[in-house]
Amino acid sequence: MARNTGTRPLAINGLTMALSSKDLLGIQGMPKDEIELILDTAATFKDVSERDIKKVPTLRGKTVINLFYEASTRTRTSFELAGKRLSADVINISTSTSSVVKGETLLDTALNIEAMKCDIIIVRHSCSGAPAYLSTRLKSSVINAGDGSHEHPTQALLDMFTIREKLGRLEGLTVAIVGDIEHSRVARSNIYGLSTMGAKVKVCGPPTMIPPGIERMSATACYDMDEAVEGADVIMMLRLQLERQAAGLFPGVREYARLYGLNQARVARAARNAMVMHPGPMNRGVEISSEVADHTPVILHQVTNGVAVRMAVMFLLAGASKAEA
Amino acid sequence: MARNTGTRPLAINGLTMALSSKDLLGIQGMPKDEIELILDTAATFKDVSERDIKKVPTLRGKTVINLFYEASTRTRTSFELAGKRLSADVINISTSTSSVVKGETLLDTALNIEAMKCDIIIVRHSCSGAPAYLSTRLKSSVINAGDGSHEHPTQALLDMFTIREKLGRLEGLTVAIVGDIEHSRVARSNIYGLSTMGAKVKVCGPPTMIPPGIERMSATACYDMDEAVEGADVIMMLRLQLERQAAGLFPGVREYARLYGLNQARVARAARNAMVMHPGPMNRGVEISSEVADHTPVILHQVTNGVAVRMAVMFLLAGASKAEA
Amino acid sequence: MARNTGTRPLAINGLTMALSSKDLLGIQGMPKDEIELILDTAATFKDVSERDIKKVPTLRGKTVINLFYEASTRTRTSFELAGKRLSADVINISTSTSSVVKGETLLDTALNIEAMKCDIIIVRHSCSGAPAYLSTRLKSSVINAGDGSHEHPTQALLDMFTIREKLGRLEGLTVAIVGDIEHSRVARSNIYGLSTMGAKVKVCGPPTMIPPGIERMSATACYDMDEAVEGADVIMMLRLQLERQAAGLFPGVREYARLYGLNQARVARAARNAMVMHPGPMNRGVEISSEVADHTPVILHQVTNGVAVRMAVMFLLAGASKAEA
Repeated sequence: MARNTGTRPLAINGLTMALSSKDLLGIQGMPKDEIELILDTAATFKDVSERDIKKVPTLRGKTVINLFYEASTRTRTSFELAGKRLSADVINISTSTSSVVKGETLLDTALNIEAMKCDIIIVRHSCSGAPAYLSTRLKSSVINAGDGSHEHPTQALLDMFTIREKLGRLEGLTVAIVGDIEHSRVARSNIYGLSTMGAKVKVCGPPTMIPPGIERMSATACYDMDEAVEGADVIMMLRLQLERQAAGLFPGVREYARLYGLNQARVARAARNAMVMHPGPMNRGVEISSEVADHTPVILHQVTNGVAVRMAVMFLLAGASKAEA
Repeated sequence: MARNTGTRPLAINGLTMALSSKDLLGIQGMPKDEIELILDTAATFKDVSERDIKKVPTLRGKTVINLFYEASTRTRTSFELAGKRLSADVINISTSTSSVVKGETLLDTALNIEAMKCDIIIVRHSCSGAPAYLSTRLKSSVINAGDGSHEHPTQALLDMFTIREKLGRLEGLTVAIVGDIEHSRVARSNIYGLSTMGAKVKVCGPPTMIPPGIERMSATACYDMDEAVEGADVIMMLRLQLERQAAGLFPGVREYARLYGLNQARVARAARNAMVMHPGPMNRGVEISSEVADHTPVILHQVTNGVAVRMAVMFLLAGASKAEA
Repeated sequence: MARNTGTRPLAINGLTMALSSKDLLGIQGMPKDEIELILDTAATFKDVSERDIKKVPTLRGKTVINLFYEASTRTRTSFELAGKRLSADVINISTSTSSVVKGETLLDTALNIEAMKCDIIIVRHSCSGAPAYLSTRLKSSVINAGDGSHEHPTQALLDMFTIREKLGRLEGLTVAIVGDIEHSRVARSNIYGLSTMGAKVKVCGPPTMIPPGIERMSATACYDMDEAVEGADVIMMLRLQLERQAAGLFPGVREYARLYGLNQARVARAARNAMVMHPGPMNRGVEISSEVADHTPVILHQVTNGVAVRMAVMFLLAGASKAEA
């Protein structure tokens, strides 16, 4: 992934820090200090959503576009709220209403949006690499809100934020990621980020769903779930895309749940005070039992933190230079 | 319907008043003084929409979510405008874009939305009781924007507001509600509210559309429309759901219009200066003749008042305690 | 088209000017000085979108409704941004979510929206004349955002703004409009506007797509594209509606592209520094070659200017009187 070099300085406590790119396209290759900068900034923004008046003027007069080529309540709403709480003007464009249906190219659509003068374009697309492609042609900041089975960087950032918030650190932790690793942009972004931050990542799932060469991503593969969660500090469950069954990637929902579903017995194998995480939406009774889901407040904390992390990213990309001036 | 007890005091003219619930789920069981509080508050907000600058800072920094599982321009737009005129951040989530399609439970969707820190969730759902169910699990205020054939409380409140505005009172009036009473949440909420406020309610429609035991709701049933409207101060027409014909509930649109449609001759049977109301959208030529519809300004006054009533409800649920502080 | 007479005075540099109508329904019949007023006002608003803080308080507390009965990202987003940058509250209503599906008449829907107290209703509709019809019944300002094959006035205004910005004038220029003239509201509005402003308009396309009597619209028809663009100062390409092929209006996409598509060779026939324009979205390889499209920055300037022109129109219709007071 190409990284642009327009530095955006930020002064907090006298330290000037910056993201090295105008965009947030993925976690792969992102330096540890930039991840930390985002997480630290998110901590200051988390407070905003807890206040009686959940709004700061930081991005007043900025334009944020949610360009979603895949449906998503959760992520779209989280970005929309993050933008509005920063006082930006937020515009939603989703596939069903977009000119895409008229056969316009992705780039032409994006160039047209940019021509209306926006500051940040948040892109979700079913094609891996779509946001990165756009970022090279747009002056606006592009935030990848999930591209194919490539990356979902803000999800990994909010996951890391949540782990750090609950367990105090990321370094030295063991994180088990369970499910369809091959097709999961959530897993991919988390593997990159967690290993950069010094955590040990184990991935687990049916052999058909573990990409070959996973060890080159600094993760170790494991095909037995009991073994994977043994002693883990964090169990990160992935949503099973039920349509993968038709593709022959797993034999059936019940068997999948038995082999790779998280239940209380498996939680008990993890470290004491282990965290259970899920990016949502959950398939209860498939990858996670209802019992575990209902005793896992962290899953909702992830959602809460998502808004804070997205506020931080938008601030660092579009507001930080101004804050310093 | 369970009522939570978090009192929200409001001081107007030295009187401290409050809604006894954090939610507005229905009119059934709502005390007369709470209905009056809402109507009185709406009267003060009605003025805002008439001004050149239709905006007050009352709910600045608050987050309002429109969670609509059924399509509705009118109600969604009315709530959206009410929220925006109170300066809240309003987010629309509708079925077509929501995670519902991914099989997430209603509660999980709502908990996720709440985890993003919202103050008010407005819920429209085809299942009776859905908002009440959510209200017991959410800390946010839930406003029922119509649930199945159960209740549509803000519609009844705006109807009562409109009657009171035009006729000066509710007590002692005779209100004829005509149409598919059985399946109408509008009728149900109005019957509860009007009878609480001391009006006499007569319901009229085909026998297949009058629920058994209607008299236990303090209404009297009548199967002849000429008789039902005789001397009525208010004629409230309900929209005919044309798809009920397939279910055999009425024989045909023309016969329905002849037996239960409102025309000038029937209006003439009502009291002098009788009001004709309709919650919209109207089926012209079915439950209401175009002639009557076009000479019934009150139908649009209902729409105008809807915004004021919804501003009042949002203020009382999310803003009143602060206003006092 | 009937023009209402509520004058809206505007004072700029001591000159009081006004639009003679409360609405913008079309360019046909609009006097030259009103077109100039809009273009001059747009020039002052263009700067707003270039600023770090892209927002002015001009329409704070005003309500703008985007009522779109046809899908359109571009136009809806442009109006939405224009409204938000003027600080208005903007509400989107599109067919898929509207009550239209319930069989309500267009007028009833519009009256209901107006009853919620809005200042401007922007209407896109597949029926020619729909916005004009509504404008006679509504007190709000109606802006036609494209109606059938009738007019698309803000598109013509932004096109004229862009030509004037690049070439310094409109008077005396030769503009070739190429494509399906018959069904193009963009062409129609531009022909009216450009001829009012003193430009010479040539239209070109397959004989099946040139309306009979085009000369009565002050344009000259030409069926050979090479001839049409010869010496032109501006080449304005229209989007080919591919579904017209089924209707037998053109034999095939390839033949259309060969006969009426814009390529470099044809651009070379035009005047030196000739402008190439396209309202978007483009069918690359059909009415315009990718090579030409990619070397035509003006197409994106049109988009940029669209926001400025729409801000100007909204300001002149809803904000100007107040600005003077």
